[in-house]
Amino acid sequence: MARIRLGMVGGGNDAFIGGVHRIASRIDDRFELVAGALSSTPEKSEASAKALGIARSYGSFDEMAKAEAARDDGIEAVSIVTPNHVHAAAAQAFLAQGIHVICDKPLTSTMEDAAALEKAVASSEALFVLTHNYTGYPMIRQARDMIASGELGTIRIVQAEYPQDWLTSPMENEGLKQAEWRTDPTRSGAGGSIGDIGTHAHNLACFVTGLEVESLAADLQAFGAGRALDDNAHMMLRFAGGARGMLWSSQVAPGNENALKLRVYGAKGGLEWSQEDPNYLWFTPHGEPKRLLTRAGSGSNSASQAVSRIPGGHPEGYLEGFATIYNEAADAIQAVRGGAVKSEALGVLPGIKAGMDGMRFINACVLSSNNDAAWTKL
Amino acid sequence: MARIRLGMVGGGNDAFIGGVHRIASRIDDRFELVAGALSSTPEKSEASAKALGIARSYGSFDEMAKAEAARDDGIEAVSIVTPNHVHAAAAQAFLAQGIHVICDKPLTSTMEDAAALEKAVASSEALFVLTHNYTGYPMIRQARDMIASGELGTIRIVQAEYPQDWLTSPMENEGLKQAEWRTDPTRSGAGGSIGDIGTHAHNLACFVTGLEVESLAADLQAFGAGRALDDNAHMMLRFAGGARGMLWSSQVAPGNENALKLRVYGAKGGLEWSQEDPNYLWFTPHGEPKRLLTRAGSGSNSASQAVSRIPGGHPEGYLEGFATIYNEAADAIQAVRGGAVKSEALGVLPGIKAGMDGMRFINACVLSSNNDAAWTKL
Amino acid sequence: MARIRLGMVGGGNDAFIGGVHRIASRIDDRFELVAGALSSTPEKSEASAKALGIARSYGSFDEMAKAEAARDDGIEAVSIVTPNHVHAAAAQAFLAQGIHVICDKPLTSTMEDAAALEKAVASSEALFVLTHNYTGYPMIRQARDMIASGELGTIRIVQAEYPQDWLTSPMENEGLKQAEWRTDPTRSGAGGSIGDIGTHAHNLACFVTGLEVESLAADLQAFGAGRALDDNAHMMLRFAGGARGMLWSSQVAPGNENALKLRVYGAKGGLEWSQEDPNYLWFTPHGEPKRLLTRAGSGSNSASQAVSRIPGGHPEGYLEGFATIYNEAADAIQAVRGGAVKSEALGVLPGIKAGMDGMRFINACVLSSNNDAAWTKL
Amino acid sequence: MARIRLGMVGGGNDAFIGGVHRIASRIDDRFELVAGALSSTPEKSEASAKALGIARSYGSFDEMAKAEAARDDGIEAVSIVTPNHVHAAAAQAFLAQGIHVICDKPLTSTMEDAAALEKAVASSEALFVLTHNYTGYPMIRQARDMIASGELGTIRIVQAEYPQDWLTSPMENEGLKQAEWRTDPTRSGAGGSIGDIGTHAHNLACFVTGLEVESLAADLQAFGAGRALDDNAHMMLRFAGGARGMLWSSQVAPGNENALKLRVYGAKGGLEWSQEDPNYLWFTPHGEPKRLLTRAGSGSNSASQAVSRIPGGHPEGYLEGFATIYNEAADAIQAVRGGAVKSEALGVLPGIKAGMDGMRFINACVLSSNNDAAWTKL
Repeated sequence: MARIRLGMVGGGNDAFIGGVHRIASRIDDRFELVAGALSSTPEKSEASAKALGIARSYGSFDEMAKAEAARDDGIEAVSIVTPNHVHAAAAQAFLAQGIHVICDKPLTSTMEDAAALEKAVASSEALFVLTHNYTGYPMIRQARDMIASGELGTIRIVQAEYPQDWLTSPMENEGLKQAEWRTDPTRSGAGGSIGDIGTHAHNLACFVTGLEVESLAADLQAFGAGRALDDNAHMMLRFAGGARGMLWSSQVAPGNENALKLRVYGAKGGLEWSQEDPNYLWFTPHGEPKRLLTRAGSGSNSASQAVSRIPGGHPEGYLEGFATIYNEAADAIQAVRGGAVKSEALGVLPGIKAGMDGMRFINACVLSSNNDAAWTKL
Repeated sequence: MARIRLGMVGGGNDAFIGGVHRIASRIDDRFELVAGALSSTPEKSEASAKALGIARSYGSFDEMAKAEAARDDGIEAVSIVTPNHVHAAAAQAFLAQGIHVICDKPLTSTMEDAAALEKAVASSEALFVLTHNYTGYPMIRQARDMIASGELGTIRIVQAEYPQDWLTSPMENEGLKQAEWRTDPTRSGAGGSIGDIGTHAHNLACFVTGLEVESLAADLQAFGAGRALDDNAHMMLRFAGGARGMLWSSQVAPGNENALKLRVYGAKGGLEWSQEDPNYLWFTPHGEPKRLLTRAGSGSNSASQAVSRIPGGHPEGYLEGFATIYNEAADAIQAVRGGAVKSEALGVLPGIKAGMDGMRFINACVLSSNNDAAWTKL
Repeated sequence: MARIRLGMVGGGNDAFIGGVHRIASRIDDRFELVAGALSSTPEKSEASAKALGIARSYGSFDEMAKAEAARDDGIEAVSIVTPNHVHAAAAQAFLAQGIHVICDKPLTSTMEDAAALEKAVASSEALFVLTHNYTGYPMIRQARDMIASGELGTIRIVQAEYPQDWLTSPMENEGLKQAEWRTDPTRSGAGGSIGDIGTHAHNLACFVTGLEVESLAADLQAFGAGRALDDNAHMMLRFAGGARGMLWSSQVAPGNENALKLRVYGAKGGLEWSQEDPNYLWFTPHGEPKRLLTRAGSGSNSASQAVSRIPGGHPEGYLEGFATIYNEAADAIQAVRGGAVKSEALGVLPGIKAGMDGMRFINACVLSSNNDAAWTKL
Repeated sequence: MARIRLGMVGGGNDAFIGGVHRIASRIDDRFELVAGALSSTPEKSEASAKALGIARSYGSFDEMAKAEAARDDGIEAVSIVTPNHVHAAAAQAFLAQGIHVICDKPLTSTMEDAAALEKAVASSEALFVLTHNYTGYPMIRQARDMIASGELGTIRIVQAEYPQDWLTSPMENEGLKQAEWRTDPTRSGAGGSIGDIGTHAHNLACFVTGLEVESLAADLQAFGAGRALDDNAHMMLRFAGGARGMLWSSQVAPGNENALKLRVYGAKGGLEWSQEDPNYLWFTPHGEPKRLLTRAGSGSNSASQAVSRIPGGHPEGYLEGFATIYNEAADAIQAVRGGAVKSEALGVLPGIKAGMDGMRFINACVLSSNNDAAWTKL
């Protein structure tokens, strides 16, 4: 089966997330990376492309979109891995050419950009996939499936958190590039920790439970001196249908690397999952002992097995979960080639709706916090 | 050294908490239980006293307070372990006689009772100790000491939670006595989960950090059908001095037995502790690896060693933590005998202030929740 | 119900294990400590007795045994908590007077002493209880019960280990009294780590599985310079009936406090337990997910509930497990008072047989190791 | 940088380990799989190659070795992922043509084959890499480096274990192909669990400590009815230089998936690592608290960082560890191209010596066990 020709915007040589996308696109051997506009200048882009063995390098995403669309062997899909404020324009350039877009999250840095992108997605024949990568973890798929099939009963409580500690010190003043743009509203948007990681927690809570957050009451803080964006956020959630939740995101909690954690409790049972130990899922049917479900092990279901590559006891990790998004994007691209309707082709893949939900989440957090944590609709 | 003569109100034969107080009072051999008004009727009290080998049984706490005060060998202290709504009257009866009171928490079931009791404590020469027993765990003492001595830097974030699962099903309709009175406002007061366990989380957060909660925004729920009191509570906290926090209490979270957990993060480091594994304390100096401090082990400090009975690696548990409250109450009683000022004699023991704080906490939770989670001062 | 009058030999003021016995004897309120020969000289004994509030102090265990036997209100039972080499003579003195003996382990320091004691136990009407205290942990009782009732199928594999780290450095040369006598063959006997802690692992493996070790192949080491006794021991075990096992004891494994751990695997399932987290028991029915059974929680059985004092989620620890030995010793004493046969009165309590098994275990370890780890019968 | 042209022997379509090698070879983008002899018949091979998008398919490894060596664009390296008994002949065929070999472990199924292969490796200019993949885990590299630089002091104790549970039931009689050949001496060799997984534990123990096992005393069992090879093995180890160890391998321990675990203790500290949670490494400097070192986190050293792809807190797993072997094999191939000496080019990569050590280990285990666990030199 021929590999899908892929391009990339952003992700020059030593950018963290670009490398992740490239590995993820290779793991299941469904893509071939053949073109890129990897950096902010043609020279840097060219150097990165050469180092990475990418055939064609462009000076800008616009140039790349047009040139590739004009080739018979042009790219069929593109990965967008730039800072947030570039996502919208880049995605639109490729969507306009009918080239499928796989875009890093959050969707954009402003609501205006997001609305424009939403329109562009609607009017394009190409697919738009947002790499909410944690949705690709097998035990997250298992949790979603168990809840959907009623194993927890009516969901009552959702506790989501994503603490990190890397901004405990003022890294943005110490030359860390990643810290610079992530704490800069013009490049990141209105959300600091809520945009970078809170959106992951929000997305995961909704993905796993199948519920929507209706309103939230948020209290955002910037503990780092002189920091313009939140580095810690506390909030309470009200889900449609009556479930309640809490969400905590932080970049100033020493001892936490990427401690994304989701706990869901229903009338019949509970589930607990932690990103740092992703091959495990705690399941407690109420009144029975806790069970430690393992990826591809006893107690695993078809939803997790479908996205597992190796037997239980041999851990799959972050890159494999990310690769599942790419693998399913390849499935979706092949499905639309075969005539499938876009929405059906995407299946459980996060797309523009997840992206808009994330933007509304960030927006509501900021509004609520500015209004002394008043309940704010999404 | 002679044992202190102790009486008990409530705690008839098969009551859970009465038995805990009795064991706790024996572990360090500082008390001798010689009198009781253990049940609601003289007959039941007598039967319980006999079964427990308690010398003198009374039909009511009033009778007991007067009779014991009149004896040369009468009790010097009394443990009050009744349902919440009896605490105030019982405590006042003994305080009026100069008999020291060791009272279960929460303080009372109403703010009025609490205010009356506060006055009684102020005007009595006897001590009033509230068994916020989790403050007796060695690693909690260590955490408090580490924070007080600046090892975490300025405290920024406090995450407290106390989930249980025993009310997931409607146990109160199935004949469980404990469930009946705990879900009954006339016996428990205005708080359900917040009164029973949320107060523990609140107390512990303040005890360990040395900070006071200034205001909170709470969203209380009763998921159990027909339940009058909250069985789940979400809230955000604002501490005096600028720290922020979240607190979750729940009795409907399947898979959680008594999962009281406290996490504190400062500008220089973080601490994490879990009641179900109380001999461990995670400590992360920012930028260094996490360290697992153990009770009486390497890394333990004098504050935890002072309340440890056995070497590290041999777990002490709930009863030992509770016993430390009794042991320090004995110290305090001896100190006041020797002429010490009451407040100094108590040291770190929780007393009337902790009790009033707990009442204000419950009150603020209910007010805030009734006001759509508006920020409410304590 | 009247408390049993108890005496104590050894356990002067600041000895670790004496204090443990005293707390254990108080927790369930079945004993009253009224006499002691606590130290090696009458003066020290008297001082310790006074400090502990013990009514009668004696200069030697012989004097105590005779004097107490002659009193109407003399002790009914005695705790022996001296270094190993004193156990036999002390126990015999009390057994000869018909006074029940609760003796610390290992039984004695030599096989000769053990044989003499065995005879003394057989010819006395008094009970002999050996405080193999780990058998008192609730989840150990649960494990034993599950295996006895066939939940694991035929037992195939038993992995026992008890690593510590306190002798990693040469503590015996640095004035630590405990390290001095434990590394001294004249006081400890032929076993170093195997006598002090290996016997616990051996005892627990047999207690839980109901199997006997038939032969073993042992390789003992003394890593500490100049150490006369083993501080690390490796061995393979062959159980009667075909099960095989390994046992590791060590006092030189940095990072291990008291990491006694038992894992048992049968044709139908597996169990795993760790002393440092004693309220948990992992149970895997083959082909199903692992289950975390908790003391007094869902999945706990009557065997563990029978020795639990408080609800699940509130940890019981080492002292409570130890107290269960005392509580059941009290039951046994009352049973023989009531005419029960000694062996039936003891129930699951470890007695002279467990003690002799331990001595044979130490002996076989030393013989095997001296014979280049040849298989040696117990 | 051009990718290395790779071939594969074995690994037809649904074989577990073939798929693992293919993913591992892609993750770091250093290889391009262009030829294969994937199955036992030309037809099956062809079908698998087609499904996998592999350009050239051959009917046998012999044919493939010759044909590829004759092409200008022929393969430069080959992965051998057949059952054990085919390894030697296949490897020799490619080594004879100067094609680098990346071979699955154990080396071969007989000592004779191993000796022949050893000669072939010595006389070929091509490299021979054995995929002892666990050596690729970052925290294993860190452990090796810490020990080599003396952070643990002189190594005293090495506890290695690798329990699984998949042969608890007689899977080989229930049509599981993997179970059939792994329990068949003609295809697996003389070792059952010791060959399949014991060799991993042995290899890892030596890799991490830098020590060699001098002799061992082994007790092998076959608990599964009618099983010709061991499914459980207990052994004691004596390392050159005086360290001692234990090793346990099992395929009949319910509740263990791939619970490879290594614990190493020296005069100055201890390390503990578990394959199922590979991003963590416990480190205890003697007398200090345990530290949880994390991959790419605080406390990680250059040895682990060198083989990490993503920041700490985002787990890398089994496939990434495996990919590191491929990545370093690519480095080595480029180094020899550039004129480096073979042994230097390999660096820490396991090669023929590790393979021979494994064969000697299996052989010694069987000899020792047949001789009632007598100490046997490797």
